[in-house]
Order: sequence, then structure tokens, then C-alpha cells
Amino acid sequence: MKVDGVVRRSIQLAADGRSVEIVDQTLLPHRFVTRTLRNLADAVEAIGSMRVRGAPLIGATAAYGVGLQMREEPSDASLKRAIEDLLATRPTAVNLPWALEEMRSALHDVPPAAREERAYQRAAEICDEDVENCRAIGEHGLRLIEALRETRTGRDPLNVLTHCNAGWLATVDWGTALAPIYLAHDRGIPIHVWVDETRPRNQGASLTAWELGEHGVPHTVIADSAGGHLMQRGKVDLCITGSDRTTATGDVCNKIGTYLQALAARDNAVPFYTALPSSSIDWTLSDGIAEIPIEERDGSELSCVRGRTADGDTVEVAVLPASSPVANPGFDITPARLVTGLITERGVCEASRAGLIGLFPERAGGASDS
Amino acid sequence: MKVDGVVRRSIQLAADGRSVEIVDQTLLPHRFVTRTLRNLADAVEAIGSMRVRGAPLIGATAAYGVGLQMREEPSDASLKRAIEDLLATRPTAVNLPWALEEMRSALHDVPPAAREERAYQRAAEICDEDVENCRAIGEHGLRLIEALRETRTGRDPLNVLTHCNAGWLATVDWGTALAPIYLAHDRGIPIHVWVDETRPRNQGASLTAWELGEHGVPHTVIADSAGGHLMQRGKVDLCITGSDRTTATGDVCNKIGTYLQALAARDNAVPFYTALPSSSIDWTLSDGIAEIPIEERDGSELSCVRGRTADGDTVEVAVLPASSPVANPGFDITPARLVTGLITERGVCEASRAGLIGLFPERAGGASDS
Repeated sequence: MKVDGVVRRSIQLAADGRSVEIVDQTLLPHRFVTRTLRNLADAVEAIGSMRVRGAPLIGATAAYGVGLQMREEPSDASLKRAIEDLLATRPTAVNLPWALEEMRSALHDVPPAAREERAYQRAAEICDEDVENCRAIGEHGLRLIEALRETRTGRDPLNVLTHCNAGWLATVDWGTALAPIYLAHDRGIPIHVWVDETRPRNQGASLTAWELGEHGVPHTVIADSAGGHLMQRGKVDLCITGSDRTTATGDVCNKIGTYLQALAARDNAVPFYTALPSSSIDWTLSDGIAEIPIEERDGSELSCVRGRTADGDTVEVAVLPASSPVANPGFDITPARLVTGLITERGVCEASRAGLIGLFPERAGGASDS
Repeated sequence: MKVDGVVRRSIQLAADGRSVEIVDQTLLPHRFVTRTLRNLADAVEAIGSMRVRGAPLIGATAAYGVGLQMREEPSDASLKRAIEDLLATRPTAVNLPWALEEMRSALHDVPPAAREERAYQRAAEICDEDVENCRAIGEHGLRLIEALRETRTGRDPLNVLTHCNAGWLATVDWGTALAPIYLAHDRGIPIHVWVDETRPRNQGASLTAWELGEHGVPHTVIADSAGGHLMQRGKVDLCITGSDRTTATGDVCNKIGTYLQALAARDNAVPFYTALPSSSIDWTLSDGIAEIPIEERDGSELSCVRGRTADGDTVEVAVLPASSPVANPGFDITPARLVTGLITERGVCEASRAGLIGLFPERAGGASDS
């Protein structure tokens, strides 16, 4: 998508064709800075410190992280270490183990001398597949938006609420939840986005608002607490969020607070959709609350806020009494019963095992049913 | 309650017996500073800038604001102006017009020369009544807590979730939602409070956490989005919030986000109580969503965050892209159907007209039924 009028991806090869260029998302929205990953440690650091975040982009970065390591040392031990180090960076997103398994199977039977070339090739494929999946998600979601517009009379724009950042910054391009919105906007459909701030890391306020603004999509930032009120007053037509991990039964693990927005949508008869590439479906799981471990993140994310001073400096300020303890679960589970539908690269389906199997029949026998 | 071991109220007469001392709540939790109100303009400014906030404390401050003005000029015109100026400071809390009407009826038949004395007397009564009401709310809520403890086995402490600040800083002393918690703690019942940060003004993080900490009550600060997740995992036994305004039918208007916590409580079978003095019941209203105007507050509350730097200075930092618009509704409506019960100074009742009339039978004929 566009930054300052120039089209780019969230991750791309640098001019040398081997280093990898990312956008340092920890500096947004105040500074747009790219960063070059030159080795495995750089990739591990970029994921661990959330310079890159979002399930699909984490997977893409991990894939290139393996490539960077194969360039330095293509041995079996080195491949094993790269996969282990990258796997340990973040516990929740299923794309991370998925992408690393893709890299492992692409490389383990390849002679070491050929591994660098093959690794870069597979990483590029993973990125291109992600872009194509996101574009397809956008097209399927766009049809939902068009259908919803036809049921309304005389009220433009269509108001969509989203939580966290499931935009192009979270993927390689287009995004998941935002892909239908970008497509609608690009095709001239009047659309306006309510952007949840998304405490504690403010990904909505700092990333979603920034990328929508750069692309020219009308939007308004709100506190995470405001969505229910807006829905009560008829000011939200549709919710679309991303998903970090979806069970085979349609439970959605996404940024903390997604569950509350889904409850409010249900209470006010607002359709609540989740957009996801199928790579983020965990076909082995059937109960999100019981089976998905929730990452407990550092309390400083809540107790300290990063922002820009009047002088233009970026600083962190403490917002809590120094002695108050903090709990900071990073994700929650939205049960399938609250999800109107799942928007995948193959189409839109009910949030259920039957719905998902309808789109992905090759998975029919694969998952253990509980 | 206690600050640094010393018992005080949120508003009290200064040593001269006429000026009024408040706690400047905009500086908490980083600095505890009291401020002296010497005239009507000081009182108007203190309410308008939220140095004092919380429905009962706003009412008490407005009452003393009339007293300060009567001291300067006790004429009818002056009384009228004081009431008008104070009434214009905040639109939502019903205690403000209630307290001003109390002052008007106490003063309008009194000769100007006697008005100062009478005004201070009535303001002191309003404060003492508030303290007594809050203590009574605490006692009734404490019985709920004791009853809830008896239904659980072997799991201490009892975990209570609260939103915003309905503690002693929001009233004259004790608080509403926190009164049962302070009483339980003081009587040796193991209790722990999940404190919602309460964006955008962070009253939970900056006020509730601070006052619980000063009084020694165990607590943990969480993002507003985290409550649903904690309830899903059985980590919340009870929710208690305050109310800025309650309809005769039990709809609760409270800090934005209260509705989302109530939805999560319902979805997880967690009891959800609202604690309120009856002065905050608006007996003329029967539909909170249709009838209560929601204050739209300045967007800078969301786009700028005040906090303390590593150097100890308190600064504001911008957290949004400069070009992103903001919406900032200050309150929402929690429909009575989601409220397990109302804790008032006369006891606990169902959130319904019948429930409220049961406790306040003198209101049986007074409200228009729709």
C-alpha cells in the first residue's frame, strides 16, 4: 500500500538482494524508518521487540531469518538453531511455526551448498502467497461490504469498526481485516473506519490510523471502551478484525479486547467478521479457551506510554503509581458463537468446523475431533 | 480514607473555615497536591478541569462553590449566577443539578445577610450525608461480598473488577464502588481488585490504583480490554462499578466502557453490581439509551497522554498521527438487564423500577411511567 504516495511492502529485499528491509513499527506513527536485517540475530530481535508484528508478517520475517542464517552457515545444525531461535520469539501466532516448518521442509533434503538459494526462493514465495491471500480476502470481504450497503438506505459512509492492526503492516501487503476496506475505498465506495486505540500497545492508534491515513481512508480513532456505545447508537455497520490463531471450530484468538467488541456487536445485532489467511488456522484445536495459551506480556507496556513531546522527541512516560502491580494478557478468545463469519482467501464461511471444512475440504479427515 | 497514613476527605474546609481544600486529581498518581478554592471561579474551574470529578464530589464542590459566592456577594442575582455557572461545568452527572437545587431551596427564602452561614451549613450537611451514604453503601456491599465468599471454597482472595474511579476520590469519603472493598479489607477479608486503566483519562490507573495503594488494598492494573479474558478464565468473582446517573428503571450511565464489562460479566455468569447514592438516580428517566445525553469530550484526552518522565517531570505526549481525527464519548449506558443489582445507601435491589421503588417507596407516584 502507499506511504507518502509511494507503494511498498512491509517486508522486502534490500538493494543487495540478500539483506531484508522492514519498517520499524515501534517508531510509528511519529517516524517512518526502515531497518535492514543482515543476519539471524537481527530477525530474532525484530520479531521479539515487535519491530515487525502481525501473524503473517512474523511468519514472513521468520522465513527470511532462516534465509539470512543459511547465507552465513548452511549446515544442519545451523538450520536447526535458526528454527529454534525464531520459534522462541513469540508464543501465540501460528504463522510462526507454520512458516518455519515450511522452511524446514523446503531445506532439510537440500544439500547445504544449495540452501541459501532455496531459502530465499521459499521466503519470497511465502511473501507472495501472503500478498495474494490478502488480496483474495479483500475481494471476498468487499462483496460482504457491497451486500451490506444494499440493505441500507441513504446512509453513507459505511462505518466499519476494527480492533488492533490487521492492515498491511501486519502482513506483507493489503492486510487481512483492512484488505476489504482498502479495496472498497480504492473502488470508490464511501467507507469510514472506527479505529480502536488498542491498549496497551496502541497498535490501532499508532499503526492502523497511520496506514489508513497514508492511504487516504477516512477514519476516527476511539478508545477501546467506546465501541459498545457507538454500536448502541447505530454508528457501526460492521466489525472486522484479524486473528492471530483460529481453531478448527472457529474460535478466534486475537488481540486482547476483541472478545468485548464481539460481545457488543452481538448485543446490538452488528455483524462481526474475522479476516484471516488459512495459514493462521490451527486445525488441531477445537476449543480456543481451553487450548490456546495466552501470552502474558511485560507490564511496562501498560505502565509506560511512548509518545511525542511538544519538542518532537519520542519519550516514554509512566502513567501508573510506581507501586501498583500490572497484568498484561496479550490476547483473548472470541468464541465462534459470537463470530458472524470468517473471511478467508477461499471465501467467507460460518465460524464452525462445518463452515471451515466447506472451504477447506482437504482438512476434513485431518483434525482430531473432540 | 488514608493518604500516606493520614486520614482525610477529598474535600474539606481549609484552616480559615471558609476556603475549601480539594485534592488536585489531575496531578495524581505522580504528585499529591491539595488546592484551595477561594471563590466561585475557583470552584467552576476545579469542576470544569476535572481537578475534582466523580458525581458525588462534583455535587459537594458545587455546594461549596455557592457558599464561596455567598461569602463574596449574597444577593439574589449573585445566587442565580453561581448556580448557572456551576450548572454549566459538566453535563452528565445528576448530582450537580441535585446539589445546586438543594442549595437554591436552602437559600432563596433566607435574607442575604444570613445566606453565607446557611450556605456553608448546607454544604457541610451535603458532604456529611454523602459520607454517611457511602458508608451505608459499603455495609450493604460488604454483605454481598461475605455472601459470595461463602459460596466459594478455598479460593482466596476474592477478586473484584472495577472500572474508572468510584472511590473516595470520587465522593467525599469511602467512595461508592470501592466502599464495600475498603470495608472488607479493613475487616480482614482477603480481597484483590482488578483495576481497569479506564482510557482515555486513565482514572483507574491514576486514581483507583493510587487510592487502593495508599490504603493498602491489594490490586492489579489491567487494560480495559483485559476484563473479558480474565472473566473467561474464572479470575473475576464480582464486578462493582459506580454510576454517574441511573434511571428510575435501573439503566446505568457510567464511564465509557462500563457497558462492555457488563456484557462480559453476563457472558461469564459473573455478578455485576453498580453502587450509587440515591442522589444520582434520575427518577424522571425510564430509558437510558434514549434519554441520557452523552458528553462528547475533547479529543486531546485520547490523543495526548500525561505521564512522568524518567527525570520525574510530568509531561504530555502525543500518541496519534497528527492528522487522525478522534471521537471521545465520555460515558455509556449499561442497560438494566445486564446489572445484577444496585447497591444503594438503603440496601441492594434489582435494577428495575420495582426494585428501586421497593427501597424508595416515597418515589412510587413521583415518576412518570412511559
